[in-house]
Amino acid sequence: MAGNNMKKLNIGVIGCGFMGRTHSNAFSKVTNFFDVPYRPVLKTICARNGDRAQSFADKWGYESIETDWRKLVESPDIDLIDIASPNDTHAEIAIAAAKAGKMVMCEKPLGRTPAESEAMVKAVEDAGVANMVWYNYRRVPAVMLDKQLIDEGRLGRIFHYRTVFLQDWTISSDLPQGGEGLWRLDASVAGSGVTGDLLAHNIDTAMWLNGQIEEVTAMTETFIKTRKHNLTGKDEPVRIDDASAFLARFQNGSLATFEATRYARGHKALYTLEINGENGSIIWDLHDLHRLQFFDYRDESRLRGWRSIHVTDSDHPYMKQWWVPGLQIGYEHTFIHQVADFLSGLGSGVAAAPSFREALLTDYVTDAVLQSAANRSWVKVAS
Amino acid sequence: MAGNNMKKLNIGVIGCGFMGRTHSNAFSKVTNFFDVPYRPVLKTICARNGDRAQSFADKWGYESIETDWRKLVESPDIDLIDIASPNDTHAEIAIAAAKAGKMVMCEKPLGRTPAESEAMVKAVEDAGVANMVWYNYRRVPAVMLDKQLIDEGRLGRIFHYRTVFLQDWTISSDLPQGGEGLWRLDASVAGSGVTGDLLAHNIDTAMWLNGQIEEVTAMTETFIKTRKHNLTGKDEPVRIDDASAFLARFQNGSLATFEATRYARGHKALYTLEINGENGSIIWDLHDLHRLQFFDYRDESRLRGWRSIHVTDSDHPYMKQWWVPGLQIGYEHTFIHQVADFLSGLGSGVAAAPSFREALLTDYVTDAVLQSAANRSWVKVAS
Amino acid sequence: MAGNNMKKLNIGVIGCGFMGRTHSNAFSKVTNFFDVPYRPVLKTICARNGDRAQSFADKWGYESIETDWRKLVESPDIDLIDIASPNDTHAEIAIAAAKAGKMVMCEKPLGRTPAESEAMVKAVEDAGVANMVWYNYRRVPAVMLDKQLIDEGRLGRIFHYRTVFLQDWTISSDLPQGGEGLWRLDASVAGSGVTGDLLAHNIDTAMWLNGQIEEVTAMTETFIKTRKHNLTGKDEPVRIDDASAFLARFQNGSLATFEATRYARGHKALYTLEINGENGSIIWDLHDLHRLQFFDYRDESRLRGWRSIHVTDSDHPYMKQWWVPGLQIGYEHTFIHQVADFLSGLGSGVAAAPSFREALLTDYVTDAVLQSAANRSWVKVAS
Amino acid sequence: MAGNNMKKLNIGVIGCGFMGRTHSNAFSKVTNFFDVPYRPVLKTICARNGDRAQSFADKWGYESIETDWRKLVESPDIDLIDIASPNDTHAEIAIAAAKAGKMVMCEKPLGRTPAESEAMVKAVEDAGVANMVWYNYRRVPAVMLDKQLIDEGRLGRIFHYRTVFLQDWTISSDLPQGGEGLWRLDASVAGSGVTGDLLAHNIDTAMWLNGQIEEVTAMTETFIKTRKHNLTGKDEPVRIDDASAFLARFQNGSLATFEATRYARGHKALYTLEINGENGSIIWDLHDLHRLQFFDYRDESRLRGWRSIHVTDSDHPYMKQWWVPGLQIGYEHTFIHQVADFLSGLGSGVAAAPSFREALLTDYVTDAVLQSAANRSWVKVAS
Repeated sequence: MAGNNMKKLNIGVIGCGFMGRTHSNAFSKVTNFFDVPYRPVLKTICARNGDRAQSFADKWGYESIETDWRKLVESPDIDLIDIASPNDTHAEIAIAAAKAGKMVMCEKPLGRTPAESEAMVKAVEDAGVANMVWYNYRRVPAVMLDKQLIDEGRLGRIFHYRTVFLQDWTISSDLPQGGEGLWRLDASVAGSGVTGDLLAHNIDTAMWLNGQIEEVTAMTETFIKTRKHNLTGKDEPVRIDDASAFLARFQNGSLATFEATRYARGHKALYTLEINGENGSIIWDLHDLHRLQFFDYRDESRLRGWRSIHVTDSDHPYMKQWWVPGLQIGYEHTFIHQVADFLSGLGSGVAAAPSFREALLTDYVTDAVLQSAANRSWVKVAS
Repeated sequence: MAGNNMKKLNIGVIGCGFMGRTHSNAFSKVTNFFDVPYRPVLKTICARNGDRAQSFADKWGYESIETDWRKLVESPDIDLIDIASPNDTHAEIAIAAAKAGKMVMCEKPLGRTPAESEAMVKAVEDAGVANMVWYNYRRVPAVMLDKQLIDEGRLGRIFHYRTVFLQDWTISSDLPQGGEGLWRLDASVAGSGVTGDLLAHNIDTAMWLNGQIEEVTAMTETFIKTRKHNLTGKDEPVRIDDASAFLARFQNGSLATFEATRYARGHKALYTLEINGENGSIIWDLHDLHRLQFFDYRDESRLRGWRSIHVTDSDHPYMKQWWVPGLQIGYEHTFIHQVADFLSGLGSGVAAAPSFREALLTDYVTDAVLQSAANRSWVKVAS
Repeated sequence: MAGNNMKKLNIGVIGCGFMGRTHSNAFSKVTNFFDVPYRPVLKTICARNGDRAQSFADKWGYESIETDWRKLVESPDIDLIDIASPNDTHAEIAIAAAKAGKMVMCEKPLGRTPAESEAMVKAVEDAGVANMVWYNYRRVPAVMLDKQLIDEGRLGRIFHYRTVFLQDWTISSDLPQGGEGLWRLDASVAGSGVTGDLLAHNIDTAMWLNGQIEEVTAMTETFIKTRKHNLTGKDEPVRIDDASAFLARFQNGSLATFEATRYARGHKALYTLEINGENGSIIWDLHDLHRLQFFDYRDESRLRGWRSIHVTDSDHPYMKQWWVPGLQIGYEHTFIHQVADFLSGLGSGVAAAPSFREALLTDYVTDAVLQSAANRSWVKVAS
Repeated sequence: MAGNNMKKLNIGVIGCGFMGRTHSNAFSKVTNFFDVPYRPVLKTICARNGDRAQSFADKWGYESIETDWRKLVESPDIDLIDIASPNDTHAEIAIAAAKAGKMVMCEKPLGRTPAESEAMVKAVEDAGVANMVWYNYRRVPAVMLDKQLIDEGRLGRIFHYRTVFLQDWTISSDLPQGGEGLWRLDASVAGSGVTGDLLAHNIDTAMWLNGQIEEVTAMTETFIKTRKHNLTGKDEPVRIDDASAFLARFQNGSLATFEATRYARGHKALYTLEINGENGSIIWDLHDLHRLQFFDYRDESRLRGWRSIHVTDSDHPYMKQWWVPGLQIGYEHTFIHQVADFLSGLGSGVAAAPSFREALLTDYVTDAVLQSAANRSWVKVAS
């Protein structure tokens, strides 16, 4: 029997794809490892296809299924709506959920456009409901350690930020677009290509660590111009960006390069970031996410070198809750950490970041990037 | 509600320390990710300290607690006894559980001595109960990929095996021995030091991959000669081996070096293994467990190099069940894989390895190592 | 006694700073390792400061010294003028040397401006003298191996080029500008900052490997606005670019990011390049210059990984001339290779690359970068 | 014209194979980079084959050749005899050279047996001539930095030493033994296999860094039992050790593992060493020789990690003489450093290490290793 002093929080998850799984796992495991004031209950899984929903419910122990998200949103059994469905559904669901007084979590990016995102922000703020966007990479222990170092001033004045997100899964021209698992190639569903899918992560982390981005100049490219569309069965123009890169200036005077692509052969999900400061630098990458590279200029000259920190000690962020030093955790744990922080925040009244409002700032940057690529000019970022 | 076609398997876990947690997590998560014919139910957690057991039960959702393992072993509610308690309890519990007709899983090493281990093997075989020892590192996807490569003959004739397990957590002379969390330094509880604790892992993997070890010459050392004992409150001689190294010859003619220590400053849990064959070589290490280094001599000469394989693709062992390529899993997943294999084996009638009998072979090697170190001579390994 | 069948080539080197040393070493060692039709003779070293020239001559075995480069250029004893002096002297010396009928080698970049460079090209072409620019990094064996792979079509269609040159030696605001060893911070001498000093290397290699760059959008920054000038003794505005980054499109349709800075704490001379093609990718970096990372998509799926090729085998470019496999060479050897290629080319009548004309193309790109940064717009590259 | 204040030192080198080249290069380059009181003059190269000697002389600028080493040793023109010929010639030449009053440098190992080595030590000491053995790896800047750290007490009490030397060039059974370039496989010429060829390096460095080795237990193996002999043209038994490994105890109480082999597929010349001390650890390897891995336990707990030190700064051993930070040197430079130290020592009266006497200690260890492998027992090392 579970601890009695934990309040239950009934969760309704919409979407049972990749993100439905990561979120379900997070809700399901968080209380095994973290002392939090609420225990998430996997109440209802919602998907249009009832069989798929049932199979997912069986896997994860959901108490019930639902095929109409509107009913889920209205259900009095549900405390929190978690949106893990494709991007074109985010705004409508989030706004309805907020109006129904539910807490709302939303997979990133918030909306397909700043207009959608602004409406979502307004909805949750008008309703006064707890809200959060799943920018999970902030909760990698090594990335959180970066944040600590920066907040402590250890890097000093920041000169450079350098980040890429490299994948290679869409290189084949035989890959179709649209439909289950491939909606990320369909601009009408996804909003954009790698800019919203990948660079949004880079941007969220960057602004969290290094402050506001002021202006950008960008280029985008679609290498494969047409692909068979799964929904029409015909060759259709590809309207997403396969690759996107931009130069940026931050408010703090530092310079940045950002790049994302799905055409970088050899890289599956290589999200890297590097920050160069006057007194030190850090490098992190997702392919070995449990490591942080740290260069400390204050080390004795002769013995300076990049330290490869195996971020698995009990004094590292989140790691006390896991195993023993040297034993690494992985990707899925970032979602567990985010739920843990959300639940702790619910208890203490401190909202877990990023809120919808904070995530909107990322959408302003991605929008400026797409504008700049279209206009071939520098673009100021809204804020 | 969970899938109806899965049979329940009621689990009683003994011990709620580090290993109690890894096992509980494995039983709890396996059906979220693997299609197996049985669903483990966390029925009862057993620990001498009732409060501790209750707190653990709350965390993990055990239905009940027990403070006397003898009662647990006799309970008709329990299908499988999982031994996650200190080494000095393994034999007695396992034998009693087998006699009570329960399936038995046992944390490694099997017993403190070959005599204990042999009695355990006899008990499970006499009772005809399913049994398994938690040599979890076999189930690291990268290590399982090694096994595939070797079984396919890709490395050719094997010349060398090279393996270490390096830690640094007992260097301080202020660290006491004995009692909660420190029984591994107390020879009467642990049986031996790093030989049984760490080298047992190296040996199990090595014989699984490369066959029987025939003879060894070893040295051991205890760097800190006395430590305060937590149970007596007094300084007591340290009787475990702090470090242990040996040379070995395998039945297949290959040579090996093995070394383990808790005095390797800078290494938290660095288990590494390297195999050199006529046509190729592999290297793996636990600090980046999701990577395999592979050298293929059949590559074009000019372009030969060690490949750093990020073992996260869907055609890698176990990985189809997890996330998407590039997203790494960690330490805890090896236990989930082992439970998945055990449950699949239960369904198909194929025992999951290593059985008690197979694990006994490792104990024969560790025994030979300790003998050799004491006698300063080469020792043949029993089998 | 040296081999009789080698013709002597009398060298006059101008400048005895860092580059004077690398060139002298190259001329001096080349015949120890390479079979070439000419033997360079270190005839005369030229520097304004006679004592410094004499000391340099003693170190390197020059037969004589000269303090007036005009006299050197006119000397009948000299076959080849090598320009290793600051950038503001390149054009004048090169043009005079060409007019005097000497072969000319010039340290990069060619001139401070395209106008200077064009005049230099015209001079050597009008005179019909052998000429070469010291873009030494082409001759790193690993980089030359890249070139082979690309020329063999192994990477397939190229999608991305990614390159940086990161240093950290000018971060301190106490560092003065101008004068001996620090002329690179003085725009009137250097022409530009990192754009001409560092990015020129990135660009030269990039166009050699991947073809013409068509257009760029750039940003530059000067982080420290004033520094004491060694020649005036006063604080003066810093007019060079401390950092420079640009996005580019190549003629072959691939996208690129370029960045150089002297404010990347922790990196001494980290020149890296990465190329992503349809069938494979390569990564190289100067800090471990004897390694090439190669990803071959045609490897068996399960066993794909980045190969770390230790480019020290006898079938690797230039390496047959050096030691035995596994024994690395370093930075200085790139200059030796360049001289070897130059001398072989003299014998066979094939000009060693890059010629002045080819190097001019790099200056067109650096010029476009500086223009773009000033104008905040995309700029087409001249060619 | 060379500096007038440097005295000439006339060198006679015996042997123009691989080591003849590394030594010639060292003598030839040392004064370009180091301020030393003597300038080596490449006076005479000696080899049995006159054509080969002449060709070598042409390459390197030797003034004359000689085909009979006895004449060279007696020549009044020669100040220093450098022995770069196969092992079976070392003792006879060194003793004759010493008797003739020449300084003597000898390629390692000293003799084929301790008896030969002892006679060599006696000869140079009786003659009172300067002497040195080419254990070049001490002069890798990163290894010398290790030495500094240890001498400063930064690692604290040493617990472990771990070293291997792995190659893969003799795996093919088609490779013959004996004769030019392959005498290392012929026991009568080489003395032993990898024990004297490779482990001698590991042992020399180890005792220099960590003190005397007291006892060993070893195993050796010859994987390919017969090979065609180039001198007889017939298949002959292979009498060298293809692989050799041993456990050791140092006088300071630390434990060690040593292993060398020519059957480690994928490793060309991977000499690695690791030292674990109470307060820190270091790792170095020859494949990236310009890097030192250093772990400092006194770093702040949360930020501890292995530092990858790029040993190319001007405050690193020897590096001030080379290029600028970040630009690596390679294998050949270790020989140049050794000559520089020898020449400086000549000037100051301090013998450069290792002397014949010091190198003899290494031969005692390799002898103990071979004895132990033969006797299957622990063996005390003579000293």
